[in-house]
Amino acid sequence: MHGLAELIPDTAVAARRRKPSPALLALLKGAFADRCSTAAAVLLQHGTDESHYAPQAPDAVVFAHSAEEVAFLVKACLAEAVPVIAFGAGSSVEGHLLAVEGGVCVDLSQMNAVVALHLDDLSATVQAGVTRNQLNAALSHSGFFFSVDPGADASIGGMAATAASGTNSVRYGTMRDNILGLTVVTAEGEIIRTSSRARKSSAGYNLTQLYCGSEGTLGIITEVTVRLHPQPEKVAAAVVNFPTLANAVNCVIQALQLGVPLARAEMLDALTIRAINAHSHTKLREAPTLFLEFAGSVGQVEEQSEVVRGIATEQDGGDFQWATLLEDRTRLWTPRHHAYFAALQLKPGCRSFTTDACVPLSALAECITETLADLERVGLPAPVFGHVGDGNFHCLILVDPNIPQEVQDAEALSERLIHRAIRYAGTCSGEHGVGLHKIGYLAAEHGDATVEVMRRLKKALDPKNILNPGKVVPL
Amino acid sequence: MHGLAELIPDTAVAARRRKPSPALLALLKGAFADRCSTAAAVLLQHGTDESHYAPQAPDAVVFAHSAEEVAFLVKACLAEAVPVIAFGAGSSVEGHLLAVEGGVCVDLSQMNAVVALHLDDLSATVQAGVTRNQLNAALSHSGFFFSVDPGADASIGGMAATAASGTNSVRYGTMRDNILGLTVVTAEGEIIRTSSRARKSSAGYNLTQLYCGSEGTLGIITEVTVRLHPQPEKVAAAVVNFPTLANAVNCVIQALQLGVPLARAEMLDALTIRAINAHSHTKLREAPTLFLEFAGSVGQVEEQSEVVRGIATEQDGGDFQWATLLEDRTRLWTPRHHAYFAALQLKPGCRSFTTDACVPLSALAECITETLADLERVGLPAPVFGHVGDGNFHCLILVDPNIPQEVQDAEALSERLIHRAIRYAGTCSGEHGVGLHKIGYLAAEHGDATVEVMRRLKKALDPKNILNPGKVVPL
Repeated sequence: MHGLAELIPDTAVAARRRKPSPALLALLKGAFADRCSTAAAVLLQHGTDESHYAPQAPDAVVFAHSAEEVAFLVKACLAEAVPVIAFGAGSSVEGHLLAVEGGVCVDLSQMNAVVALHLDDLSATVQAGVTRNQLNAALSHSGFFFSVDPGADASIGGMAATAASGTNSVRYGTMRDNILGLTVVTAEGEIIRTSSRARKSSAGYNLTQLYCGSEGTLGIITEVTVRLHPQPEKVAAAVVNFPTLANAVNCVIQALQLGVPLARAEMLDALTIRAINAHSHTKLREAPTLFLEFAGSVGQVEEQSEVVRGIATEQDGGDFQWATLLEDRTRLWTPRHHAYFAALQLKPGCRSFTTDACVPLSALAECITETLADLERVGLPAPVFGHVGDGNFHCLILVDPNIPQEVQDAEALSERLIHRAIRYAGTCSGEHGVGLHKIGYLAAEHGDATVEVMRRLKKALDPKNILNPGKVVPL
Repeated sequence: MHGLAELIPDTAVAARRRKPSPALLALLKGAFADRCSTAAAVLLQHGTDESHYAPQAPDAVVFAHSAEEVAFLVKACLAEAVPVIAFGAGSSVEGHLLAVEGGVCVDLSQMNAVVALHLDDLSATVQAGVTRNQLNAALSHSGFFFSVDPGADASIGGMAATAASGTNSVRYGTMRDNILGLTVVTAEGEIIRTSSRARKSSAGYNLTQLYCGSEGTLGIITEVTVRLHPQPEKVAAAVVNFPTLANAVNCVIQALQLGVPLARAEMLDALTIRAINAHSHTKLREAPTLFLEFAGSVGQVEEQSEVVRGIATEQDGGDFQWATLLEDRTRLWTPRHHAYFAALQLKPGCRSFTTDACVPLSALAECITETLADLERVGLPAPVFGHVGDGNFHCLILVDPNIPQEVQDAEALSERLIHRAIRYAGTCSGEHGVGLHKIGYLAAEHGDATVEVMRRLKKALDPKNILNPGKVVPL
């Protein structure tokens, strides 16, 4: 845990700090009553995320209940050019939430109404604070589900804001592919809808995709209309070991090239399996492993798994261990979902320095292999796992935050990995976003002229730089 | 055909006209030699599209060969604030190409190199002028294909610029879902790449999707990296009649709700079938009809068609007529692809006033039924067909351009349909874009505040309004 002492800003931060005036705080307290807090513990919680950064607390937290309330708050803060930082479930990992210039955090977690289930249209509309598990619970007997699964029970607004993806994007797509429209509060406190509920549209600039992934820096997402997918008749999960991670990766790529619609294809290295075994009391073999999921009709699942079994054999894969009943599949996937927390327990007191490279499929095995060699040289423990079908993998570099050398080594490893991914025509961020941590790499990935376009967009939509300042784009 | 007389601008247009100076024309002629043309026939061709508008010619046409040449051209025109209009295959239908303020048309059709086939990554990079058929020819023995099929053999750059879709988006997605990245020339003549070649990314604002669908008003797309899909083992096409269009629509929607991955699902009304029979010498029954396509393994295709046959029977559908061999499928689908030209021949000398409404699936049958009644009242011939799985349908309202009443009636029908679609939470444009024709409807669909955001984006990225002025956003 972090002490309150860490909240004391250093002088550099203090110089940039844009605190709300006593009058603004009084206005907010008057409007929101006990839903406006300046209690130290509340501030600390809202300045903390799952990144390796030390917390940076805002000056106030407001728990909003509607887009209108968010709009009121933004207008009030705009008058003083005070920052407004949107907060969902606090599960982001790149420093997105840190109040680097102070300001007011608007917590959307109480905006948790499922507004409408449009089952005939295969869509649902939810307030931004609804979590993915909450939406799926609301859909439990409908025959449909919401597909995007980043692991954490993130809020759907937050998932939209970071363009999240996760374990089953290989089949069903990322948040980008699963959002039909957004309600957004602009930097002027206007409430806009970005799109109709039609399944496709060419009616003007794609604001839905502009706000999706903008991390609260261009507008604050208050409502999301998402696609739903029909529940498949049958789902089967399988675990299979390989001699090397490259074999595991190649197995998945070949399956995709043959058109097998894998529902999930997660790669885990031996160290991740060891962490999972210790944390979840499982007895998985500590070897490079694929967790696979097949979904469809009974016949399709059989056919798909037959094809993949053949490919796995060619890649020297071991036997498939199967789980078809829901409880067995849950028993299998729950440890995978807890991999992050399991990894943290490998090294007591550590924080994870989590990488997020994503490369074209043909470069994935090589990029991972080089990265493993680099990790080995440096000697920090780092479980590696990834969403193979997307070309995306994470190294959880475990560092003791009190040992500066470890933090430096992890940062250097991360930086080498980013430049390696870019050399392979890949990206510094597959799904975690930019936040604070990746700002410095955007120019290396995209070029200065592209970053300049992003900067212009930010200036056009948020001229006073009040929306989550200091994130995504270097101004 | 249009006479050259129509090229003479009326005074309103003339007042807005921003002609290149003699010095600029001399510069372009010097740089591009015979690839810079001011011949009347060339100007006319480049001011003509497939819309119901009379042509409006640019002042010069330049045939570019590279992004660098486009950048040079843009910089030259920027110096005089002269408009630059990008031209691909000329197949757009909403007036996108008309030089309403004059200027220089940059024809990209000679930028037709397939730059790279990254088969292991399931992607390909092409210059903007490559057409979809050309790319698929380059892929013919690869086991992969490019999926987006808007009917016309459009250029891939143009398809990206209008966010095109078409017959198989129900399975494989629209252009938005199939673009990994773009090379774009900005209004300042900078050449930027919007994205890496990774299959997903959260590294900054989504410029790929901002330029996709921006119709040349924010930047000029010079290169596109698209997704490829594995060729399915088997493809089967089927034709089935229904008593009403509503039955046909409901058949498709129920199949989607059951998770059947239809490869195509095209609805055609009896009049469209009549037009096709006359044009392509087919003998299809003149009744509401579905053209369906199933794709996958042999077993999957059998299973899918079995399910859909059951649903069709419940909707009083007739027998399925099947085509599984490639030549038979081509014989079936070619007339569908020619439906637009077949429809034009129903009324000699006519032009088509083509609507493009798209609504949530649950509203589709009702929206079509009300529209058919409206068409019947007005009495203009109007074949109706659509991409049912997307909720998108087109009425080809056939008007004699020399009879003002017919043009007015068609415009009024179109306007009522747009407001009907918006009432059903749909969009004025499913896939054809805004161009000139839909500008006036954006506020009705999105609200003024949303349109204001679009306007700010335009002003931020093209402050001198040189990129395809007068399109998409009302300034």
